[in-house]
Amino acid sequence: MNLIMAIHCHQPVGNFDYVFDMAHDKCYRPLLDLLNAYPQVKVGLHFSGPLLEWLEKHRPDTLELMAGLVARGQVEPLSGGFFEPLLASIPVRDAKGQVLMMNEYLEKRFAFKPRGFWLTERVWDPALPLTLEGTGMDYTVVDDTHFYYAGLKPDEIYGRYVTEKEGRTLGLLATPMIMRYIIPFRPVEDVLGHLREMEQTGHNVALYGDDGEKFGLWPGTYEWVIEKGWLERFFSAVSESRDWLKTVLPGEYVASVPPLGRIYLPQASYEEMTEWALPAEQGRALEDIVTSLKDQGRWDEWRPFVRGGVWDNFLVKYDEANRMHKKMLLLSERAAGNDEARNYIWRAQCNCAYWHGVFGGLYLGHLRRAVHENLIKAQALLMEKQGQDLELLQLDFDKDGAEEILIFNKNLSLGLDPDRGGGMFDICHLPKAVNLSDTLTRRPEAYHRHINEARQDGGESNDGIASIHDLAGAGDKDLESLLVFDSYTRTSLLDHFLGSGATPEGYAANGYSESGDFVQGRYRVEQADVSSDHAIVEMSRTGQVNGVSFKVSKTIRVGKDARVIFEYAFECKGHEPVSTLYGCEFNLTLYSDEDSERYYRIPEADRQREIKETGSEDKVTRFELVNNPDRLCASFSFSIPVSVWFFPLMTISKSEKGFERTYQGSSLLFLHPMDLSPGEKARFQIELELVEI
Amino acid sequence: MNLIMAIHCHQPVGNFDYVFDMAHDKCYRPLLDLLNAYPQVKVGLHFSGPLLEWLEKHRPDTLELMAGLVARGQVEPLSGGFFEPLLASIPVRDAKGQVLMMNEYLEKRFAFKPRGFWLTERVWDPALPLTLEGTGMDYTVVDDTHFYYAGLKPDEIYGRYVTEKEGRTLGLLATPMIMRYIIPFRPVEDVLGHLREMEQTGHNVALYGDDGEKFGLWPGTYEWVIEKGWLERFFSAVSESRDWLKTVLPGEYVASVPPLGRIYLPQASYEEMTEWALPAEQGRALEDIVTSLKDQGRWDEWRPFVRGGVWDNFLVKYDEANRMHKKMLLLSERAAGNDEARNYIWRAQCNCAYWHGVFGGLYLGHLRRAVHENLIKAQALLMEKQGQDLELLQLDFDKDGAEEILIFNKNLSLGLDPDRGGGMFDICHLPKAVNLSDTLTRRPEAYHRHINEARQDGGESNDGIASIHDLAGAGDKDLESLLVFDSYTRTSLLDHFLGSGATPEGYAANGYSESGDFVQGRYRVEQADVSSDHAIVEMSRTGQVNGVSFKVSKTIRVGKDARVIFEYAFECKGHEPVSTLYGCEFNLTLYSDEDSERYYRIPEADRQREIKETGSEDKVTRFELVNNPDRLCASFSFSIPVSVWFFPLMTISKSEKGFERTYQGSSLLFLHPMDLSPGEKARFQIELELVEI
Repeated sequence: MNLIMAIHCHQPVGNFDYVFDMAHDKCYRPLLDLLNAYPQVKVGLHFSGPLLEWLEKHRPDTLELMAGLVARGQVEPLSGGFFEPLLASIPVRDAKGQVLMMNEYLEKRFAFKPRGFWLTERVWDPALPLTLEGTGMDYTVVDDTHFYYAGLKPDEIYGRYVTEKEGRTLGLLATPMIMRYIIPFRPVEDVLGHLREMEQTGHNVALYGDDGEKFGLWPGTYEWVIEKGWLERFFSAVSESRDWLKTVLPGEYVASVPPLGRIYLPQASYEEMTEWALPAEQGRALEDIVTSLKDQGRWDEWRPFVRGGVWDNFLVKYDEANRMHKKMLLLSERAAGNDEARNYIWRAQCNCAYWHGVFGGLYLGHLRRAVHENLIKAQALLMEKQGQDLELLQLDFDKDGAEEILIFNKNLSLGLDPDRGGGMFDICHLPKAVNLSDTLTRRPEAYHRHINEARQDGGESNDGIASIHDLAGAGDKDLESLLVFDSYTRTSLLDHFLGSGATPEGYAANGYSESGDFVQGRYRVEQADVSSDHAIVEMSRTGQVNGVSFKVSKTIRVGKDARVIFEYAFECKGHEPVSTLYGCEFNLTLYSDEDSERYYRIPEADRQREIKETGSEDKVTRFELVNNPDRLCASFSFSIPVSVWFFPLMTISKSEKGFERTYQGSSLLFLHPMDLSPGEKARFQIELELVEI
Repeated sequence: MNLIMAIHCHQPVGNFDYVFDMAHDKCYRPLLDLLNAYPQVKVGLHFSGPLLEWLEKHRPDTLELMAGLVARGQVEPLSGGFFEPLLASIPVRDAKGQVLMMNEYLEKRFAFKPRGFWLTERVWDPALPLTLEGTGMDYTVVDDTHFYYAGLKPDEIYGRYVTEKEGRTLGLLATPMIMRYIIPFRPVEDVLGHLREMEQTGHNVALYGDDGEKFGLWPGTYEWVIEKGWLERFFSAVSESRDWLKTVLPGEYVASVPPLGRIYLPQASYEEMTEWALPAEQGRALEDIVTSLKDQGRWDEWRPFVRGGVWDNFLVKYDEANRMHKKMLLLSERAAGNDEARNYIWRAQCNCAYWHGVFGGLYLGHLRRAVHENLIKAQALLMEKQGQDLELLQLDFDKDGAEEILIFNKNLSLGLDPDRGGGMFDICHLPKAVNLSDTLTRRPEAYHRHINEARQDGGESNDGIASIHDLAGAGDKDLESLLVFDSYTRTSLLDHFLGSGATPEGYAANGYSESGDFVQGRYRVEQADVSSDHAIVEMSRTGQVNGVSFKVSKTIRVGKDARVIFEYAFECKGHEPVSTLYGCEFNLTLYSDEDSERYYRIPEADRQREIKETGSEDKVTRFELVNNPDRLCASFSFSIPVSVWFFPLMTISKSEKGFERTYQGSSLLFLHPMDLSPGEKARFQIELELVEI
């Protein structure tokens, strides 16, 4: 019986240093130390680029230890996209380039020429053999589900298959799901028992390919796997079972055992992700179906034919992920020949912040921030190289079939979407590499219905511990009552007309009535021009307020500095007067109620906001978001006094520890009453300056 | 209510002239005549390249009629790969090239620049927007299932979506399945009623994209749709409903209506194909699941999450399809810069012969033959261009992860697979462009279990006619008893060792016992050399016969003519004697029991075979397959007298008319008894000459 192990260790670009540190001490290092102590145990090891960079800087001794294991043929380093991108969702040149970068690193660091790679999140795409042509990759590891979707039966997945695209081939090995659920969560005897059983039913190879973080970093696993010695017992038991069981490096296996045949996998990932990638409602429907099949004992039979979405669906589910993705695509295309910019873009391709499953992912602001920071740095470099200091682009940026407008100068980048309320979806400060518009809309998630069932029964029990997939969630009983969902994607420069009863609290809770149809209405681009020192965009929409025809025009003026002027013109076009409360919405991330160094300020009153939640300020002509850690301030000035309503965008999302309530940005509404007779016009101006402090 | 229609008309490369003729008269022409008579009815029309070429040659008047309809803005010609290839399963350069070829034709013939294309078999691949970059394509038509798989709900599929790959976009419109099932199979009032109902539930657009052959060519449809006037009544009813219903060209709709949003479709086709693409056993399992869901009334709810395989799985299911596909890939790569060869390759990419669903497809020998003929012509041209008259290649031709050997001269091409019995999977005669190895293995199909349920209830009933999907099959009660399945893919030069009780009938029915392990055993390549006038391949295997160690070596010698010599050496390597009946298997297509001009011949006896089924001939030293229509004879000579067992490879497959029994080639076994003492050797030689007659 051959046991092939491929262990994948990864920390995302932008993760906190203390997490790297903890992951190293509780998980990666103990794993390597135990491998060192059990030389019979051979494993394929994938350390992602961000992790390797951290180790080079902070723990080169750990890399030396690994080098020793590689040198004695016990560890086979696996390649992959260096910064752990989803290979099928980035441009081919970048996918190939990132794998070559990892190959080069491994050859240099470990004197090892890799032949296999870890497939990020096992997101398979049928074009990969062609994408990776010329990288020397012979094989990768997927899941049993991938094979089932291709028509194979559970008995047929033990061994290597070969897939092909345009004649380029790639070997494929599959991890049975059961292996991911028993290692390391069941007692060692059970795992060995399962392998023995497989051997007795005529199999001579079993593969385990999974995340290394299960060996110490996932909740409860440090105690179970390291302190209580599961991993040592496992390695010891494997070493002592040499009469019937041996560990084989995946590359050795691939080189020595002939393939079982050809295979064509559809796009796929592990089973769970196909559910996560669906819209919440469909995700729940699929979850119900799977549950009912399991209850009826028919899951094994139906499993090959039941599945949800593909990874790309996350880009539809989350506009914010799509915006990162599309900016990445745009910059990647422009970065040809600029190695420095390309390096930032490759960092920004790290997959974790682009989606959301059982880990925080997109819901983790510091991961999104790292993506934006790298994109902005690439953008700044490209602007510099071009020697251009003001640029205006009209293109279908977000790939929704309609044109957006992008404005770049050396200080700012702005993105405007005429078709969605004439909103501003992008406001970045280039010198500080901060995306102020990096907020997150409050959306329903399929798992929200489980908040009330939440029970933390993930602790160790007598015969194993819960896998992360079984953990139900944290115990905060009030979480469900905090769930508020937005009816549109939160951007800035959105135009509200509120009824008389509107309150800050109701508005914050999405429990208010809108009298206009401008918030997500289609604006027409009247002008989009750029001169040597100014860019001007004018958009207008004739819609309705209180059922009366009403026109809003907004002109955005940008020079070469970090200032934007928004000029509004309103006109009552109907035969009735319009009396309403106009509000201009912004959503920004500078403020945080969790950090006293990030606050609201009203300069004229020299007042620093103490209020940590939903609130309002009346009749101000200036309003600031001060962010001391970033040394950046967003300063608003208004041509007429406004009321400011503000509330934090709080989301409730799942993480490996349970449900988490997270600050995702500040929603601001700048209001003033508006009473216009038929034919009457009004003007309003907002100036936004980003000030380095 | 906008009704968008996209009608796809296609006849495959290689189809019989009389079928083109009948399809024209019963279907395509009446459709155009009726459109001419009802100028209010606008449709998108796709005529595939093979059909256009036939019309140019035989019925230019019909193209003139179409040109008139295009000129008056009633018909929008749709582009597509010219020879109707599956765009995702051919090289990108060919996919792009074939679409550009169609664009050019349409611009020249109809003075129309197409913006949309018909997606062959609606086989969607997520890379298509990138593949088709630069072809000017704005949109295509898929099915509702494609959209459901992306997480959309039935209510959300009415309109245009935009998809993207590496930033390149493509518009997508979906046909609801119900439309494919009611048009033209339900009474006109029902169809209009359905559209009215949709309008009343708030939709303002409905799409119908489907095969034009439903309007006269599918069984029963000529009477129903044309003679009894369904189509005329439909066009008339649509024309008279202008108060609430209007037909819109797909291109008009796409240009004028903003998209509903972004979408990412997984690989998909129409629902039925995902079932057909699975191996028989899994296909049946899925069929059972779908049936049980329908019986329980849960199909609508579960449908988005239940599906089978992808098109590429046909290449695993049918080795014969894979061999065509891989030869096409190999030649396409070599054809760069050779327009004439490329044209043959593009013809060979016509999808129909590569798979099998409800039509004959791969089971239709004349379609396979057309593919091979075009491939061979391309190959001959490329040999000529290279100026090389003998070539030997060792490469993973069939992409199973192991190397095959190809030998080309100006007369022959041969393919050898050491890993699968050292078999010969390819024997082509280049001057005649005939692939003699174009047989088909007898395989179980998911639908075989329905043979006994076969009832021909597809005729017209009172309120409509059966859709082709409902037709159960033909009535031949004996069909099931004729089902015989092979246990391996039928190739040539396979080595059998039979037990004493073996009979020709038992062997033909796969009911015999094999005493050796050579038929599909792994042969080692001892030599694979090519000189200026000879290619030599030697393969050997030491296996077992009757449990005794036994070695078979076979040497294949090819010069520059159309002759191959197969030299066999046998050696008893064990300590026991071996007494057995050795047989060398060939599977060829020259003979046919349905054509008296294609027969077996024993030259020394000057005997022409009369036997039409399974049989045997004893002690011959020559044996010929004479094919007068192709003016080609395969002449075998043997170094020692052999018995010849022969039987036709008959398959039972589904077509639009029901179940069909089809001759797919002749299986030949050349036998002689073999008695070897330990250490004893024996030799045997077969010479095969392909003679033009």
